Amino acid sequence: MAQQPPQTAPTPAEAFDQVVNRRRSVRVFDAEAAFDPEAVARSIDRALLSPNSSNLQLWEFYRVRSPQALAKARPICLNQNAAKTARELVVVVVRRDKWRQHAKANLDFLKSQFDGSNPKRERQALDYYSKLMPIAYTNDPVGVAGLAKKSFQTAVGLVRPMYREAGWNDMRVSAHKSVALAAQTFMLSIAAEGLDSCPMEGFDSARMKSLLGLPLLAEVSMVIGVGPRKPEGVYGPRFRVPREQVVFEL
Amino acid sequence: MAQQPPQTAPTPAEAFDQVVNRRRSVRVFDAEAAFDPEAVARSIDRALLSPNSSNLQLWEFYRVRSPQALAKARPICLNQNAAKTARELVVVVVRRDKWRQHAKANLDFLKSQFDGSNPKRERQALDYYSKLMPIAYTNDPVGVAGLAKKSFQTAVGLVRPMYREAGWNDMRVSAHKSVALAAQTFMLSIAAEGLDSCPMEGFDSARMKSLLGLPLLAEVSMVIGVGPRKPEGVYGPRFRVPREQVVFEL
Repeated sequence: MAQQPPQTAPTPAEAFDQVVNRRRSVRVFDAEAAFDPEAVARSIDRALLSPNSSNLQLWEFYRVRSPQALAKARPICLNQNAAKTARELVVVVVRRDKWRQHAKANLDFLKSQFDGSNPKRERQALDYYSKLMPIAYTNDPVGVAGLAKKSFQTAVGLVRPMYREAGWNDMRVSAHKSVALAAQTFMLSIAAEGLDSCPMEGFDSARMKSLLGLPLLAEVSMVIGVGPRKPEGVYGPRFRVPREQVVFEL
Repeated sequence: MAQQPPQTAPTPAEAFDQVVNRRRSVRVFDAEAAFDPEAVARSIDRALLSPNSSNLQLWEFYRVRSPQALAKARPICLNQNAAKTARELVVVVVRRDKWRQHAKANLDFLKSQFDGSNPKRERQALDYYSKLMPIAYTNDPVGVAGLAKKSFQTAVGLVRPMYREAGWNDMRVSAHKSVALAAQTFMLSIAAEGLDSCPMEGFDSARMKSLLGLPLLAEVSMVIGVGPRKPEGVYGPRFRVPREQVVFEL
């Protein structure tokens, strides 16, 4: 017997709850069921509204859709089921090398907005993108700049609270973090659209970068398979470690 | 004049769209407006359902709520407005050091579920947590294990697609990525609950770890200020780089 329909529309929080509970990592997609590629486009647009470090938006989304591109991308994802059966593969990319370009775009936007009504905050915002950021983002993989900045931060940190993440790998972590925020907005949106996804880290990053024509400093964050689920595509019930082992209060 | 109410309840995709558009980084919270701490608890519970690498759930959420703890945490967040005015600070933590414990929890759960109905997949899942994962996760900051694994992967990668992220910092990136997925579920949930948030990376990680009593290998992913917004807490209109610069199709 069918369930009774709810008497009232869900609240926004209840609707969000349903999206979170619907989202599972789906490893077998249905080749026949309805699939609207516009739902993927809308979900990427929502992902682009995610918060991110200094609003630099160091992300890119590559939709692998054509049969030819999919045929190349599937083996790069080690032919795992989620990649073999996905209707689209969305490759989420980290572009640290674009920080100067995007910092300038922010700066130009801020200048166009400011009207002198709050001179102090306007000055701070402009200084942030034109002065502080070049110091924070200038880095090298060998670690010379990072070591210099870290030494300074550690010294200051002895006497007062101080930001400490300045090394090449710290900045790498920061960029990946921001891009992951967008990836999660994308996956939740796909669930809200009534579709399914599977985030994959098991792929050949070198071959994927070559397929996408990416430069050396670009990194692949994850590859997300998208499509409508087959029931057997969810491999089992959800397992979570008990809440009291991971949530604390001070 | 008030807007006409919508004639029908929003679809799940429309409701999600409203959540994404509501979420802004709010830097000034309202000290007087209604604030239900249970909305934070529900949002953490939803965050815990986020996808993550190998389902290891290497995350922790610390709710900084008491006046005493908040008084200590705010200067650690460099007294920025979002930290000074937040009703709660939720510190999102990466616990790579817990991989063995959580891998065992997954293994125990899988064993309790399996009934011999799909012996091949059951064997693969058990091998994954008991054999493959110890190879993947055993690592050292100096990089001896990482170098050995990377050499092997590069050699194999010459002849066929191969997973390549095996170094200490690669694993660090991977863990931070998974934790960021959960952080974004949390922030979107806070928006769905009608509240606001501000993710912060500007804090003293050493002092924060000390406040939370965290071990050396734990890392703070971000500190999220939570509360109801003041209108002036949104510092300006959203700026996004044009879609065509960051979204591509193959």
